[in-house]
Formats: sequence, C-alpha cells, structure tokens
Amino acid sequence: MTQDAVLYCEVVQFYARQMSLMEEGRVAEYAATFTEDGVFEHSLGWRLEGRQQIIDGTLGGLEHYAGKAMRHWFNRYVVEQEPDGTVRTSCLAMVSVVDQDGQVTFEPTCTVSDVLVRENGALLTRSRFLQHDTADLTRVWEGRLADSGATASAGTEQ
Amino acid sequence: MTQDAVLYCEVVQFYARQMSLMEEGRVAEYAATFTEDGVFEHSLGWRLEGRQQIIDGTLGGLEHYAGKAMRHWFNRYVVEQEPDGTVRTSCLAMVSVVDQDGQVTFEPTCTVSDVLVRENGALLTRSRFLQHDTADLTRVWEGRLADSGATASAGTEQ
Amino acid sequence: MTQDAVLYCEVVQFYARQMSLMEEGRVAEYAATFTEDGVFEHSLGWRLEGRQQIIDGTLGGLEHYAGKAMRHWFNRYVVEQEPDGTVRTSCLAMVSVVDQDGQVTFEPTCTVSDVLVRENGALLTRSRFLQHDTADLTRVWEGRLADSGATASAGTEQ
Repeated sequence: MTQDAVLYCEVVQFYARQMSLMEEGRVAEYAATFTEDGVFEHSLGWRLEGRQQIIDGTLGGLEHYAGKAMRHWFNRYVVEQEPDGTVRTSCLAMVSVVDQDGQVTFEPTCTVSDVLVRENGALLTRSRFLQHDTADLTRVWEGRLADSGATASAGTEQ
Repeated sequence: MTQDAVLYCEVVQFYARQMSLMEEGRVAEYAATFTEDGVFEHSLGWRLEGRQQIIDGTLGGLEHYAGKAMRHWFNRYVVEQEPDGTVRTSCLAMVSVVDQDGQVTFEPTCTVSDVLVRENGALLTRSRFLQHDTADLTRVWEGRLADSGATASAGTEQ
Repeated sequence: MTQDAVLYCEVVQFYARQMSLMEEGRVAEYAATFTEDGVFEHSLGWRLEGRQQIIDGTLGGLEHYAGKAMRHWFNRYVVEQEPDGTVRTSCLAMVSVVDQDGQVTFEPTCTVSDVLVRENGALLTRSRFLQHDTADLTRVWEGRLADSGATASAGTEQ
C-alpha cells in the first residue's frame, strides 16, 4: 500500500510537469515525456506514433490557441501498477482557454487512459488514449477552427 | 504520517472510481460503494437512506442529463482518520455538463462531507452531506428541469 | 521516495485548508497560514508583506465577491523539498464564482508558486507568487469592478 501511494504521488506530478511543457510550447521536451515509440490516439480515429509525430501534431494543435492561454485540468486519477511494472492510469480532463480579454471558455470534457513505463528511473507515456464526452467532436473542432479563422477541413485536424 | 499519505491516496482514488460508476450509469455498483445503510443528505433537506433509495434517487438525477455528459470535478480533499478507524473527508465539487453540441456548462459549486468506513478491506461511504454554494438551490433545480422539458415540481426532485 | 509522497499529501491538504479559510472569510486564520513576514506578490506588481497586509488585502479582495460564492480550484501540484528543508510548490489555479441565481463564471486561470516552511511542525507559506494567464489583468479587474458596481480605480485593486 505504501508503494501504491508513492507511485500515485509520482504519477500525478508527472502529469503536472508533462502538461506544463505542452502548454508552454516546449514541444520537444513534451514529446520526450513519451517513449521513443509512444502512441497518442484519439477515439475519433487519429493517431500519432513516435516523438516526431507527437511534436508535429502538438505544434498543429497549439496553433489554435495562438494569443490565448490554454490549460489542462486533470482530475480523478486512478493509478494501477501491472505485475510487469507498467503503470495504467486514467483521469478526467478538461481544457480551459483564456482569451486576451480574460474571458474563460472550456472545451468538452474527456477521459485520458495512459500506459506509463519507467526508463532510466523516469516515467514516460508509452500510450495515451483520449476520448471526448461528445458524440461528434468534429463539430467542436470545426467550431474552434472557425473561431481561429482557419478554413482547413476538420478531417485533417489532430 | 506515512499512514496518512497512504490513506489519502486510497481515498482520492476511491472517489475517482465511485463517481465514474455514477457517471456511467452503473447505479447498482455506485450504490454498492455506500454501506448497506448509507445515507446521502443534502443541506436543502432531502435525504436518501440505504442502497435502494440511493439507486432510485441517482436514477432520477441521471434522467436530467439524458443526451448530455455529466462529470464530477473533485478538488481540495481533506482526509482525517478518527481513532475508531472511520475516515472523515471533505472536498469541493463541481459538475460539468457537455451537451450534444459540445457546449460546456457548470452547476453551482458545492462541498461534500463524507464519513467512510472500511468493510472487508474496502472503503465505503457511510454518510454523505452535500451543500451547494447557493442560497436557493430550488431555482437551480427548476432551471435544470425547465431545460430538460420536465414539468415536475422541484420539490419532488431526486 | 516515501518521504516525497508523505510531503505531497501534506502539502495538498495544507492548500485545501488554507483556501477554505479564505473563502469562508476567516482572514486572520488564513493570514496565520503565512509566516509572520510572509509575502504575497502578483506578477502585475502588487505586493503584500506580513500578516496584517495579507489580512487587509484579502478583506479588500473578498468585498468583490459579496453575495457570491467564490471557490479556488487548484490542480497539477508539483512539490519539491530543498536541501535546507524549505518546500517549493507550484500549481495551476482558477477561481469560480457562483452568483445568487446559481450562475457560474470563472476568472482567468493562473499559476501559483509558493515557498513553504515548517514552523512548530506545521507548514506555512513564506512567499507566494501569482501570475494570471492574461496579458492585461487590469481589464479583468475592471470588468469585475464594473460587475459589482464599484467605481474604484483598478490601480488600487489587490
């Protein structure tokens, strides 16, 4: 039980740091919190594999927040260690966006399911599965694209 | 102190799982996270006692979210063990609702005060006291009822 | 590692209690969670030093929420102990406001960076640095002042 608590506290701080790197646009460092062959998948079907794709996909995603401050709120973590040492985690997540006038909006809530592994003592995300609480996320992406003045099809969105 | 940390990490994950069961509509499993004689009270005066009332009350509550995704955000837990082994917890809570268009709204914030007990090794909620940060919650319930097209009086609410 | 987890769980509960004291208007008790010479600074330039200034500044801030319920949501804590025993923490924070009609709004997200020290066994905040995710917070303060019908200059706002 003590070991479970130690792991829990390590995991939640891993996420605190990982998401700060992303929000601060430090995408190479963010990608380095995934394994070399790390996979980031969304229930809608898009999939990034390997750090370079994660970098490229993240840069594309960050463009939508240009001039705004985006933050990830993680909640209700569950952390479970497998017999082989891999760690399965899940949590609830929500992104807040603050625009230049200080107005706060929120993107639809989602769940995050990760597999973490330890390399050289540090936790890394080997896989992430993201599922938003909306039947049709394309409408959300489209809305966001419209907001940012982009005309690209939502289908190419990551 | 180590024991306190172990309990804290167990408790927060207990809530993560308990509220997922509710959000996923697994109400019998949700009710099973309360003791057989578990009590769920609201500062406004309603009270559920025993698993069957908790099941019925929860089913009634979930109807208001039909077609929407409701999530519970818990924050600022305080966990204290009594000499007799019971655990007193409190936290701040907020419910987010995502509609089919991906629009996010929030219900008034509240505080949750629980007494947890251990049965067969597992934590269970023996009592829960909920207090919303609004002087008159009936207006909120009524608003929600209006939204969902229901005409029932707020007084009969869950 | 066990010691890190023990400290993490103590710190997050320290904040849970500290912010409850503030929200409940118990400002002297809230100020007592800072050291005698505690400093509370904002990136915009205002600075409170010592418990009396923290009391006065907090009372001034609370006036803006008269008739409303304000809550602090803390997330993504990172807790690090220095060799000299001081504790550096950071977290993401957001304030929710519930008005008398139960409507929920949010203030811009911010980051909180604290230095905590231990006195007589208890953690206290020796310094706090707050930075909001907006380029120009005066517009936010002004907006809030406008909402509350106040006419004071934002420049005197804490």
